[in-house]
Amino acid sequence: MSEEVKDITKRSVDFSQWYIDVVRKADLADYTPVRGCMVIKPYGYAIWEAIQRELDRRIKETGHVNAYFPLFVPESLLMKEAEHVEGFAPEVPWVTQVGEEKLEERLAIRPTSEAIIGHLYADWIQSYRDLPLLINQWANVVRWEKRTRPFLRTSEFLWQEGHTCHATHEEALEEVLRMLDVYRSFAEEFLGVPVVAGLKSDSEKFAGAVDTYAIEALMGDGKALQMGTSHDLGQNFAKAFGIKFLDQDNTEKFVWQTSWGVSTRLIGGLVMVHGDDRGLVLPPTVAPIQAVVVPIYRDATKEKVLAEAAALAGELSAGGLRVKLDDREGVSPGWKFNDWEMRGVPLRVELGPKDIEAGQVTFVRRDTGEKSPVPRGEAVSRAGALMGQMQAALLERARSWRDSMTRRPADMSKFKAACEGQGGFLVAGWCGSPACEAAVKEETTATIRCIPLEGGKAGKDKGVCVVCGAPAKHSAWFARAY
Amino acid sequence: MSEEVKDITKRSVDFSQWYIDVVRKADLADYTPVRGCMVIKPYGYAIWEAIQRELDRRIKETGHVNAYFPLFVPESLLMKEAEHVEGFAPEVPWVTQVGEEKLEERLAIRPTSEAIIGHLYADWIQSYRDLPLLINQWANVVRWEKRTRPFLRTSEFLWQEGHTCHATHEEALEEVLRMLDVYRSFAEEFLGVPVVAGLKSDSEKFAGAVDTYAIEALMGDGKALQMGTSHDLGQNFAKAFGIKFLDQDNTEKFVWQTSWGVSTRLIGGLVMVHGDDRGLVLPPTVAPIQAVVVPIYRDATKEKVLAEAAALAGELSAGGLRVKLDDREGVSPGWKFNDWEMRGVPLRVELGPKDIEAGQVTFVRRDTGEKSPVPRGEAVSRAGALMGQMQAALLERARSWRDSMTRRPADMSKFKAACEGQGGFLVAGWCGSPACEAAVKEETTATIRCIPLEGGKAGKDKGVCVVCGAPAKHSAWFARAY
Repeated sequence: MSEEVKDITKRSVDFSQWYIDVVRKADLADYTPVRGCMVIKPYGYAIWEAIQRELDRRIKETGHVNAYFPLFVPESLLMKEAEHVEGFAPEVPWVTQVGEEKLEERLAIRPTSEAIIGHLYADWIQSYRDLPLLINQWANVVRWEKRTRPFLRTSEFLWQEGHTCHATHEEALEEVLRMLDVYRSFAEEFLGVPVVAGLKSDSEKFAGAVDTYAIEALMGDGKALQMGTSHDLGQNFAKAFGIKFLDQDNTEKFVWQTSWGVSTRLIGGLVMVHGDDRGLVLPPTVAPIQAVVVPIYRDATKEKVLAEAAALAGELSAGGLRVKLDDREGVSPGWKFNDWEMRGVPLRVELGPKDIEAGQVTFVRRDTGEKSPVPRGEAVSRAGALMGQMQAALLERARSWRDSMTRRPADMSKFKAACEGQGGFLVAGWCGSPACEAAVKEETTATIRCIPLEGGKAGKDKGVCVVCGAPAKHSAWFARAY
Repeated sequence: MSEEVKDITKRSVDFSQWYIDVVRKADLADYTPVRGCMVIKPYGYAIWEAIQRELDRRIKETGHVNAYFPLFVPESLLMKEAEHVEGFAPEVPWVTQVGEEKLEERLAIRPTSEAIIGHLYADWIQSYRDLPLLINQWANVVRWEKRTRPFLRTSEFLWQEGHTCHATHEEALEEVLRMLDVYRSFAEEFLGVPVVAGLKSDSEKFAGAVDTYAIEALMGDGKALQMGTSHDLGQNFAKAFGIKFLDQDNTEKFVWQTSWGVSTRLIGGLVMVHGDDRGLVLPPTVAPIQAVVVPIYRDATKEKVLAEAAALAGELSAGGLRVKLDDREGVSPGWKFNDWEMRGVPLRVELGPKDIEAGQVTFVRRDTGEKSPVPRGEAVSRAGALMGQMQAALLERARSWRDSMTRRPADMSKFKAACEGQGGFLVAGWCGSPACEAAVKEETTATIRCIPLEGGKAGKDKGVCVVCGAPAKHSAWFARAY
């Protein structure tokens, strides 16, 4: 085993250290001299580019267009929506001076863009004909964090934020749920990460929202990660910023707004859901390199093997795969195997003199480690098929595991024991009171991740509140979370 | 003529106001309450997305990968390269506080990323095996500007910045010129903007560079616009940040660096090179909408015309064009014509009952205004062919005009007269002294835009310095500039 792989902490020994090790050894990100800010290295950024490409397509397919709003938010604008400012002010960096000159009004670095966008929308929207307004932005935002962790919680991060305006609350709510579902299907189909979609409790909602919806996934250590949010902003910002329209009935009304976002945090989720003790495991969709061809030779066979490996890599590439030929000198095939396993490349194709003689190549799957000979003539079609199989298998594996880690503790003592044991999602009745929610957090550090859409609303029997025993209003999913 | 078009100032009357009118009426950008910062509206941002897509492809094709570095640069890092800090410090916004807490060290918002990247590269590069390091970043940067103008000069702007390290100066210089040529060919082939590529004089070079190269284009008012720069950083930042590598000869050496960038300023250039009194004129490559289908009907023919227009739009779209069917109610076809002309859509396809009867459609080219009947069955192929023709025609038109506006004044009085007249590029001998360069600027406000690569270096006869009459060292291109 190479030094590199030996250097990784085992998942079972210290998941948190394992995560950091993988992020750094797989070259996804690095620390910087700016407190809480990371640099996303080329391999990590290529994953973000894959995410952007596909999510942007889905965002446009649902009728949205992109725009770019200013990085700075004048203090007076940020202050306009009371709950919003209360929620974000403590972590906002302030520009107070330019060059040697003190500014008359301080400028916040955007923690999110509701305020600056609200101000502009008030100008852009006049009539019902201007609605719905469906705009998205890809941008950097800053929320100063005391304790940071690459991708999961950094002071600066990259994200997309959608900001839409509608004529009615009904339409706005449709949009909120539509985008929540875009996130859900994107997470499952593209990232191979199963999620539960639902409503946040009031204590966990976005500062300034009427309601926040989220998708939540379960990480390899049994803790939950919020992967994306979709907010029903009601008319809160519309009233604060005066975003009004003349409706068809000739009366002036405030618009109904939504906002929704996912960030580079998704990459952290990918690592923690699929990774193993050998490093990163990437679903083929997001993998910057989907197949690596590793030639195995001695001096006598070098020329022949390298030529054949190059030909094979060319064919796989022509077949539509993102392919790398690893013809590096001075490192052994074994070292290369470990290196590409660390980086999570889905398929390794080994090719040696014996393979050539036998008219075959050797496929090694990253997800299962399974090794199998494949007839040379079938390499391209089998590799292509394998991409779809691995994509499905990773989702399935994550789903089975998530399901096995989703339990329904009968009472608070079992709830607590589960939390302190393996973790996972704990589904329990909740009476809806903030006091009971707070009691759970106090006793177990678990929080309500969401009240799932399915079953969360209907009048089904939800049993009793796991804390107070009163009739439950919701069936809530609790977990310790990132 | 619609109100909208009447509202535009004529180019010949006030070019500067015409520019602002087009930017706002074509919905490219808008002002914001943040001084000097604009919002790029969806139509303008779609142009930026087209630019990004194609330029990113070309940057990757030449071996570079993308990454993302922090927005903030700690003061101590920004201060490390003396000329760099001197050049940028006056326009840097400083974050001095987060929430209520004062920071121990001030953080600059990046005006460009040499400093933060230099610090990280010192860590990433150890050996000649780590070279060349070829990284690009798409990001926002901030340089506080007193006088701003959408796209051309704003306090915050979007750009890409390449940052590369090499083992030798020769290799670095090759990279500098390679990327300059990528910019040149991109400007010409994709934006239809002819440029002259060359070396900047010392007074105009990047703060911290050994040499700066640039591409320069001529705008519709005879003023020049710098469209992109490529810097030979020598070992200036390598020495300031300690970026060293162990070479094959086992000695430790400083790397040789380059950086290069283009920004959303390109959009301003597009507007000013191709636009006319009816608004924007977009080359088909960058046009968010390449063809708009406008149905012309009365009540009796509405259904039939709309159905046929929708079918046609579908066919054009299937043929690979970005197509919009303008079936808006309540506005006349004439109003629609003006609206799409304002937005610079390359091809308008008109379709009325008479066209349907005659088995034809009517094409109207945005660049020439030429109107021609086209047999219905040939609409898709002719539209496709027209895209290539318009792309070539726009470049050709801009090139002829640029060439006609490039003159060689025999002496300073003719130089001055040309500057005060139509402007344009003035090609003149320069002895190389900063004093003569300053004298030209003082007398005419023109500056040396660049010393073209071709002819700029060789020992050809360059005549005498237009200012002092001494033998010319360079044949320089002067112009008044944005």
